[in-house]
Amino acid sequence: MVNWSELAAGRTARLKPSAIREILKLTQRGDVISFAGGLPAPELFPVNAIRSAAERVLRDHGSAALQYSTTEGHPPLREWVASRYAGVGAEAVQIVSGSQQGLDLVAKCYLDPGDAVAVAAPTYPGALRAFDAYEVRYREVEIDDDGLVPASLQHALDDGVKLIYVIANFDNPTGVSLSLPRRHAVVDLARRYGVPIFEDNPYGDLRFEGHDLPHLLDLAPELVIHAGTFSKIMVPGFRLAWLVAPAEAMEPIRKAKQAADLHTSTFVQYVALEVARDGFLDERVTVVREHYRGRRDLMLGALERCLGEGFRWTRPAGGMFVWISVPDGLDTTVLAKDAVQAGVAYVPGEAFYGTGRGTDGLRLSYSVATPEQIDSGIARLAAILNGTTPPPASE
Amino acid sequence: MVNWSELAAGRTARLKPSAIREILKLTQRGDVISFAGGLPAPELFPVNAIRSAAERVLRDHGSAALQYSTTEGHPPLREWVASRYAGVGAEAVQIVSGSQQGLDLVAKCYLDPGDAVAVAAPTYPGALRAFDAYEVRYREVEIDDDGLVPASLQHALDDGVKLIYVIANFDNPTGVSLSLPRRHAVVDLARRYGVPIFEDNPYGDLRFEGHDLPHLLDLAPELVIHAGTFSKIMVPGFRLAWLVAPAEAMEPIRKAKQAADLHTSTFVQYVALEVARDGFLDERVTVVREHYRGRRDLMLGALERCLGEGFRWTRPAGGMFVWISVPDGLDTTVLAKDAVQAGVAYVPGEAFYGTGRGTDGLRLSYSVATPEQIDSGIARLAAILNGTTPPPASE
Repeated sequence: MVNWSELAAGRTARLKPSAIREILKLTQRGDVISFAGGLPAPELFPVNAIRSAAERVLRDHGSAALQYSTTEGHPPLREWVASRYAGVGAEAVQIVSGSQQGLDLVAKCYLDPGDAVAVAAPTYPGALRAFDAYEVRYREVEIDDDGLVPASLQHALDDGVKLIYVIANFDNPTGVSLSLPRRHAVVDLARRYGVPIFEDNPYGDLRFEGHDLPHLLDLAPELVIHAGTFSKIMVPGFRLAWLVAPAEAMEPIRKAKQAADLHTSTFVQYVALEVARDGFLDERVTVVREHYRGRRDLMLGALERCLGEGFRWTRPAGGMFVWISVPDGLDTTVLAKDAVQAGVAYVPGEAFYGTGRGTDGLRLSYSVATPEQIDSGIARLAAILNGTTPPPASE
Repeated sequence: MVNWSELAAGRTARLKPSAIREILKLTQRGDVISFAGGLPAPELFPVNAIRSAAERVLRDHGSAALQYSTTEGHPPLREWVASRYAGVGAEAVQIVSGSQQGLDLVAKCYLDPGDAVAVAAPTYPGALRAFDAYEVRYREVEIDDDGLVPASLQHALDDGVKLIYVIANFDNPTGVSLSLPRRHAVVDLARRYGVPIFEDNPYGDLRFEGHDLPHLLDLAPELVIHAGTFSKIMVPGFRLAWLVAPAEAMEPIRKAKQAADLHTSTFVQYVALEVARDGFLDERVTVVREHYRGRRDLMLGALERCLGEGFRWTRPAGGMFVWISVPDGLDTTVLAKDAVQAGVAYVPGEAFYGTGRGTDGLRLSYSVATPEQIDSGIARLAAILNGTTPPPASE
C-alpha cells in the first residue's frame, strides 16, 4: 500500500490553503455582504471586446493561436508589454500564467530552503504561499502610510535577506503606496546590500489621484524583477501576466517556466493582445479607475460616519483595499465570525502575516460591492467593531 | 550590485533548456522536412467549433468565464473529465495547465532532493525537466515492444525508488504500449514496494488498432496519479489538462497548485468544455485517429522501403512517434547535423535519457508531415543513415 502522507516531500509541510479562500466560502450565504474578496468587478469586464477579439483571432490565426508556442510568450504580446515600460525591450519580457506564477518561478530560481525574504507586515498572502513552498523564512518590514519603512528594511537586510518583496503601488492589503523618496531609499538599500527586489504591480494602473511614480524597475533595472498583470485591468480569468527582468536574472526563470508548464496558453495570449492593442485597454482603464474611485469614496465616507474612537484606516490613492487598525483589546480573527453572523465579511489581519500576528487589523475591499452594500455593510461592520447592536442583516 | 548567478538557488543548476526545442529552432529553415517536433497537426484543430464555443461562452457566461475561479477547476469540466473514467468522481479531478504542470506539481509534492524516480530509458524529456527542478536522481528501466520490462523495474525498485513514471499508451518517444500482463505486473510491483505511479496519458485516445487496455489507474486507483490532456485530442494551445488521484494524494497537490498559479485559465476551461460536451470531441477524435493512422502507415512503409540492414524500429498502434534503433557504429547525435544539412530533422536519442546515453536511437514523429514530406524526408534520412548520397534537398 502507498502511504501518501509519509511519501510527501518535506516542503509540503509548509503548504497551506489560502485563508482568504476559506473565508470566501463562508460568504457564499446569500445575505452576507462581502468586503473580503479582492475580485475585480465583473461588470467592468470588456466582454464584448473579448468576444470580437476571440472571433478575429480564430478567424485570422486559428492554427497558430491554438498550437504549442514559445516558452517566452507570444512575441507581439511581449512587444506590447515592453512598450508600456521605459527602456524595456521585448526580450526582457516573460509571459506567465498570472503574477502568482511569477512569484512561484522567481522563488524556485532564487530561494533555497532557509533563505530569508523581506516582506511588509502585513503583506499579500499569495506571495507568502508561493514562497512557503520553497521553505524560506521571513523578515518582516514595517509599513506606514508612505509604504515600507527604510530603517526597518535596513534592519532586515542587516539580518540577512535573499529577496525583497514589494507592492509599491496601492498595496495589498494596506492600500498604501511607496512614496518617491522611499522608492529611492529602497533601491539604494537593495543596491548596497546586493539584494534583488521582486516588484509586484497588479494595481499600478488603478490610480485615482496624484501622479504615477516611477517603478522600482525604472530606478534600478539591474536588480528588479517586475511583475505586471492583465487581471485587474482586463480580466483575471485569463490568468495572464508578465515578468520584466535583466537578461541574467531571466535565464533560469525561462528554464523553470518551461519545466513548469511549457508556456502560457497561446489562445489567451492572442486574445488578450487583440483586446489590448490600438489603445482600447488604456481607454478601458479610465473607466475601471473611475468606478473603483467612486467605491473607495463611498467606503471612506461610510467608515468616517460609522467607526468610533480608536480606529484608524488607510486612504488609498488607488487599487482596491482599505486597511483598518482596531483599538487594543479587539481581535479581528475572533470578530470575523460575529461579523459574518451579522451579515458582513472582511479578511482578518492574521491572513497577511507570515508569523501569526495581525489580530489588530483587517482588510476591506471595495471592488465588488454596490453603493448600497457599502453603506449597509459598513454600518453592520461598525456595529460589530464598536460593540453596539448591528442593524438587521436583512436591511 | 546584484550578482544573479551567485544568487541562484541550488536547484537551478539542474534546469536545462529542452533539447528538442533547440533542434526545432534549426528546422525553421524552409526546406527542412521535420520529423522532430511532436506537434499535433494544426489542420485537425476544431477551429470552427472553438469559435462558436467561445461565442456561446461569452454570450451566456461572460462574467463567470472571465473571473477568478476555484483552484480545483471549473466544476462541470471536472465532471466531464470524471465521466471518462470508470469509478472516478469529479472530486478526484484537478484541472492543471497542461500535463507538464501536473508533472511539476507532483514532483513538488512528492520528491525531495536526492529521491529516485524510475523512468523508462528512453523517456519523455519534459518529465525529466520537471523532475530535475526538484534535484532528483533517475533509475532507468528497460523498455521493449511490450513497454516497461517488469524485471528491470523490480531491479530499480530494489535500489530504492520514490515514484514510477509511466506512459502506458503509445509512449513518447518509443511509440510502444504497455501490454496487459505487464500493466498488471507493474501495478503489482508498485503495490508491493509501496511506490506510487505517475501515469502520463497524452496519447491514449489516439489508438489506431486493437482494443483499449485498462489504465493503470483502473487497476490500482489507490496508488496512481493519472494525467490526461486536451492537447492531443483538441488543441495544445489551451494548455489544459487534468490529474486524477486519490483524495489523500491530491491534498498537497491542490495546495501546491494554488501556490503555483491560483488556478488554470477560467476562460479556457469554459471554452474547452463547451467544445467537448455533447459528444463532439469523441466524433472529432475519430477523425484525428484516422489522420494519424494514415501518416503512420506511410512512414512505416517508407522506412521498410528505404532503411538498410541493421536498423530496427517500433510499429506504434497509436500516438505520434516511431523509434529507430541504429546499428553499432552510428551516432544519432552526430548524424543529426548531417541530416539537417540534407534537409531532414529528427530528435537524437540522447534527448530522451537522463544519463547521456541514447546515441544509438532516434525519434521520428509523423504527426505534422504531409504524405509527400514523409516519402521524401524518409528517403533523405535513409541516405544519411545508410551512408549513401542523399537525394537533393530540393526534391
